[in-house]
Parts: sequence; C-alpha cells; structure tokens
Amino acid sequence: MSIVVMKFGGTSVANADRIRAAAKRAIDTRNAHHQVVMVVSAMGGSTDELVSLAAQITDNPPKREMDQLLATGEQVTISLVAMAMEAMGSPAISFTAGQIGIVTDDVHTKAKIKSIDVQRLRAALDAGRIAIVAGFQGVTESGAITTLGRGGSNVTLVAIAAALGADVCENYTDVDGIYTADPRIVPNARKIEVISYDEMLELASLGASVLHSRAVEFAKMYNVPIHVRNSQNKKKGTMIVAETESMERVVVSGVALKDKLARITLRNTPDRPGVAASIFQTIATNRIVVDDIIQTIADNKKATVAFTVDIAELPETKRVVEQLCIDLDCEAIIEDRLAKVSAVGMGMRAHTAVAERMFAALAAGKINIQNITTSEIKISALIDRGDGPRALQLVHDAFDLGKAPSKPARKRAARAAGKSKK
Amino acid sequence: MSIVVMKFGGTSVANADRIRAAAKRAIDTRNAHHQVVMVVSAMGGSTDELVSLAAQITDNPPKREMDQLLATGEQVTISLVAMAMEAMGSPAISFTAGQIGIVTDDVHTKAKIKSIDVQRLRAALDAGRIAIVAGFQGVTESGAITTLGRGGSNVTLVAIAAALGADVCENYTDVDGIYTADPRIVPNARKIEVISYDEMLELASLGASVLHSRAVEFAKMYNVPIHVRNSQNKKKGTMIVAETESMERVVVSGVALKDKLARITLRNTPDRPGVAASIFQTIATNRIVVDDIIQTIADNKKATVAFTVDIAELPETKRVVEQLCIDLDCEAIIEDRLAKVSAVGMGMRAHTAVAERMFAALAAGKINIQNITTSEIKISALIDRGDGPRALQLVHDAFDLGKAPSKPARKRAARAAGKSKK
Repeated sequence: MSIVVMKFGGTSVANADRIRAAAKRAIDTRNAHHQVVMVVSAMGGSTDELVSLAAQITDNPPKREMDQLLATGEQVTISLVAMAMEAMGSPAISFTAGQIGIVTDDVHTKAKIKSIDVQRLRAALDAGRIAIVAGFQGVTESGAITTLGRGGSNVTLVAIAAALGADVCENYTDVDGIYTADPRIVPNARKIEVISYDEMLELASLGASVLHSRAVEFAKMYNVPIHVRNSQNKKKGTMIVAETESMERVVVSGVALKDKLARITLRNTPDRPGVAASIFQTIATNRIVVDDIIQTIADNKKATVAFTVDIAELPETKRVVEQLCIDLDCEAIIEDRLAKVSAVGMGMRAHTAVAERMFAALAAGKINIQNITTSEIKISALIDRGDGPRALQLVHDAFDLGKAPSKPARKRAARAAGKSKK
Repeated sequence: MSIVVMKFGGTSVANADRIRAAAKRAIDTRNAHHQVVMVVSAMGGSTDELVSLAAQITDNPPKREMDQLLATGEQVTISLVAMAMEAMGSPAISFTAGQIGIVTDDVHTKAKIKSIDVQRLRAALDAGRIAIVAGFQGVTESGAITTLGRGGSNVTLVAIAAALGADVCENYTDVDGIYTADPRIVPNARKIEVISYDEMLELASLGASVLHSRAVEFAKMYNVPIHVRNSQNKKKGTMIVAETESMERVVVSGVALKDKLARITLRNTPDRPGVAASIFQTIATNRIVVDDIIQTIADNKKATVAFTVDIAELPETKRVVEQLCIDLDCEAIIEDRLAKVSAVGMGMRAHTAVAERMFAALAAGKINIQNITTSEIKISALIDRGDGPRALQLVHDAFDLGKAPSKPARKRAARAAGKSKK
C-alpha cells in the first residue's frame, strides 16, 4: 500500500460544497488502496478576514501573535474536512502542525521546517484513517505557532511527502498543470507533461505563479515528484521530477513573462573596488528584493551599475537610491515601465542557437531588447512593458511550444506521470 | 507583587474597541503593581459562526473535530488582545491551552481539567508580560484539543488562579455583580457584596445565570475568591468566598426564579422496592436532566412518583415516559406551565421561621404552592408559571432583601472585597 500526500489550496476548500468535493477526492484515492494524507489551506477568503481583524487592532502586530492568529484559518479547515469525511463514512482525523510535530525555526511569518515527527501520522494511517494536516504552519521547539510564509502550504505538502517517503505528492489547484506559457496571454500554450525541478524553479522565479519556488526547492532536495493537477477534473497534470538524460531533447520547456519591473541605473559611480558591494549591501539592509543586477564596463574612472526591481519595491527603492546618490556623488535614472520575457529549458546547455532564435523572433516583431541576462538554463530579455504579451507569444512560437512534443519526450512523460495513476 | 487573574467573556471582547478596552483594563491592573493573567472567551458571535460552519457539513460531527474547530475562537481572541496590549506599549504574550499545558481528560466537548503546568506562565509574568490565556479549552495528554463545556472559560479562570496561588480572580461580565434577585424582574434587587460558595452554587443551579456552578465548585475546592464585576465600570462587584462565621447573620442571601419547568407525575406505579430506581435509571440512560424528584406515600399497593424537568427536555421525556407507562402499567400526568421560586441563605440552618415566612408571603399574594423542596440552605416552591415574577418579588421583599444589610455584614463584605482593591 503506497502513500499519497494530496494538497488542496484555499479555493478548493472555500465552502461546504468544495470541502465535500475535496474530501470525496481523497476518499476515492484511499479506496484505490493508498494511504492518504491531505494537506489543506485556510478556506479561501478567511485569511484575509483574519488579517483585517488584526488591522483593526494595530498597524504593526507582533509577528508571533500574527502567526497565532493566522494559524486558526487552517485549523478550521482541517476539522471541517475531517467532519465531511466521517459524514461520508470514511474514518478521518485532523492534525494541526503542533499535533504532528512539524518543528520549525522561530522566524515568525516565514519559518523554515526543521523536522517532522511522523509517528502519529503513521499511526493514523495504519489505523485506516485519512490524516488531514493543516498546511502553512509549524511549531517551534518551545511550542510557539509559526507560519511558513508565501507558498507555505505547498512546503508542508512536500515536507510531509518527504518525511513519509511517499511515492508522489499531488498539488490540487484550479488549473490543469504547468503550461508552456500563461494561457491567459498565449492562447496556444500547451500543458507540460513533465518538467524538471530546475526548470520549474526558473519558471517560478520568472513569473509562473502556479507553484512557489520554495516548495520546488524542497522537493528537489528530497527528490519528491510533485503532480500539479486540477481539483475540478481527473486529468493528468504536470509531473515535476528530477532531471533525467532523456529530458535533454527538449531545448525550451516554457516561457514566462514578469511585468511590472523597474530598472534603476546609477551613473558615474566611483570605479573602485567595493563600491558595487556597498551599493547592494545598502539595498539589502533596506530589505529591497533585487530582480537582476546588470554590470557594465567602467569608463574614465566612473562606472555604471544597474538593477531591476518589482515596481512594488519602487517607492522604498527611490528613497534608498536618493541617499546613495548623495553619498557616492552619482546620478540615478529610473525607468518604471519595463517587463522581462524569458525562455527556460535544460536543452540550452547542449544547444548554441537558442539565444539567437529568441532574439531573431523579438527582432522580427520589432521589439527592442533593453537588456539580456542568462543562466545555464534560461535566457531573459528586458523589454518595454507594452510589448510584453506580444513578446511572450513570439518567443513561445519561435520554439514551437504550441505543438505536441516529440514522441520520446511524450513516452518519458507518460512513464513519470504513471507513478501517481489511480 | 501579587497575581491577579482576570477573565473577559465574549461580549467584553466582541469587537476591536471592546478588545482595546479590556486590554486597557488589564494594563491598568498591571500598572498597579500586580502580575496579570487574562483569560478570554471567543469574540461574541464567533462560536455561533463556527457551529454553523460545522452544521453545513454534517448534523453529527465527531466531538474531537468539533473541539478542534471551536478552539480556534479563543485562539483568535488571545492573539488580538496581545496585539492590542503591545500596540499600547505593554509587553504581552498569548497562550493557547496547549501552550501552557492545561491538561484535561479526553471527554471531548465537556472535558475536565487534570493539571496545569504553570512554568511557562510564571516565566512570562516574571519577564514583565501580561499573559493572555485562551479560556474554555484544554489539551489531552496525547495532544488532542478539548473544550470544557458550558461555563468553561470561568473554569479556566479559577483553575489558573488556583494553580498560580493568585489572591483573587476577577470575572468581568456585563452586570455589576450577583444580585439578591434578577433585577430585570425585581426592580429593588440589590447587589450582594459578599456571598459564600455554597449559596452561589444553590443560586446558580436555581436559575441565576451570571456564573456557572462548575466554576464555583472549582473555586470552592481550591478556596479561590471570585470577584464578579462589570467590565464597563470600576465599581466593586460581588465577592464569592468561603463561608465565615460572621456570614451566619444573613438568613437569606438571595432569591431565584427558574421558569420553563414541567412536572411529570407517574400514578399507580407498582409499590415495590426498585421501581423508583428503575424509573430514574431509564430517564438517566436517555440523558434527561431531572430538576427535582418528588416522592409521595404509597397507597393500596400503588405509588405516585413525580419529577420536574426543564421544558427543553420535555419532548424526549414524553417519549421515554410513554414507554415507561406501558412497561409499568401506570399513567402519566404532564403539567408544562410551572415555575420554581427559591430562597437561598446559610442562615436557614440556624433559623426555623424561614419556610413559614416564605409560605406566608406567597399565601398573602394568593399564590398556590404546588410542591415544596428543601436543602440545608434553600427552600423552593413549585408554582404556576404565570405567578413566577410576582412570587419572586414577594419572597424577595419578605426577607427585606431590598434593604442594605446590617452593619456587621457590610464590614465583612468590605474586608473580603478589599483583597482585590486596585
């Protein structure tokens, strides 16, 4: 009897009907001779209500108390899901993070899991029960409740699957899986059958929002396959797995668009060792998250340093940069209407013409490239925000992503996905 | 530095403004050089919302899951109260029952407290913090969340006060204290300054709703004085304390009315040993709570057995009694428009004319007494429900309860209440 760990997000448990549907899905999986652990988020909207309650009290709640408050959201869901299962005649038991010892560090609101004591979970499964676990939360060694930050429920999903040695973890969402591009922008985007952890990590950091990169990093570390699938249908979704040799055939797996970027260019900074370091240290001290850093060649004892940030970070960035320009006697140019289009694929490592093909596609569309950044498995181009959707479509089609993959790739995907077949 | 344990019920923490007011009250107490523990209930209305969520899922939720669900209500309040205190610049920390080891048995929805590990509570107090504790809940030795049933938050209040050896516990409500009668019925009812545990227990079981008898029993067992007072003003309330010799001066402390009673009379039951036992065993097996049992003399080998129940119990009682009448070949008479007026006072033990005075008052009002029950410190008369409010007023005035008590009694009250003076 194999173990399946399933996770349902907030929209999949937003009301009594959806809770029953999610419970039914887990029971079906159990009836197919699996032991089932179900991780759930707070009911859609309920976290916002709790945040609003806190906001009525104070603008600056202590993080420990915020975690104590927010953790009630998942606790409500687990008990309701367990009730729904029992009402359907299926033995179930709910667990808060504390009750199954999901121990984290004490960094409230973005804690990291240190260990999971699976003894109680295994006992429940061995007693024939479905175990329902509160996602997004943990408990410190001294018993304080913590939360895991953005994407936290998926981190819980993967951590429990890893701790139990589950064959697969299933991430139920409201889409069919990971797509070659955002289907709302690129109509001929295709569902990807199988993708590597590294590619998924790049896509997640470049704008694909289905899965937060923290959960993928965790899955990669413990080599737990994630099956991203739709809670509304029974279709196979996307398998996120460790890289295999046969994957190399796919040059580009997907493309992504990150809009709402701003670029800050610092001109005439002193060209001496340590200046760039001090600039980015100041920025980090002010907790500004930098997207990309762009270094350019020094000229006449003066250097140009540029970086991009999400425009949500712009007000704070402007404040910090103004002071930097006074301290370093340099000037700042801020462009706030930029976007970044990226192509991601492991095949890039073995193929040289990838960048060329991407730039040619953008050039044919008369889209000006303002900047280029690359990693081993991705190429990104900074462009005007207005060109973003069109650029995404052009790059998507330049790599034929709208067409079904070649036969060997499909076979491999089928093999990988088969592990979670019910 | 003495320890004060304060409890605020659901209406006193029903919204952000009231939470701030309650927090302010605790901070004031702390600033008067006390160490303060605050026990809070779920925000008024929130428990009903959770119950309604469960009802949307199932009519018959597993009790363990119901407790897991309901306990979130108090967890929300404790975190918000701690936030409010911190926002006012006063160090605070919230604790669920699990976090301070309020260990109970595993009788879900009406668990009993077995022990409290006060180490963490003391550490918080010694660090200069106000500790905010979730009322109404506990945790089993194996980590399951329990709730304490009706009056549970007051049980938490008294249990913590006992465990910490607090000088007094303060029960904040929306009334000024315990009254000689319900002031909504008897306009000249007077606030009682001091009352014994035993008198309070009788009043609570006879219809006074301010304090549930479980908490009073607990307070009596550990000899913790309870100060019942109003969260909206600074007046001294009512001290509930152990009996002292000087209390004997007060013949009757208060009167109470329990309306909505029904009497079931079983006529022509077999007059042989064990019949009454089997009748009440059947009733107990069906979880019907009996108010009073009335035994009458057997006549011609047939006996009459009667008992009273709250009319909420009547439908189930009728069902059980119908079957009993078939089994025992007897007949049942059901009267469902009755009420019970009672006088309570320790002085009864030393005074013989108390019953006479009460019956004379009712007779003067032409109120027919249908039945009489007594204990060492109370006399109850069963009457027509329509006569209830008038009977309460008559008995109240027959014992001069509307007038201020004699001087020695007042002095004693002032001494007892002074223990919680701020």
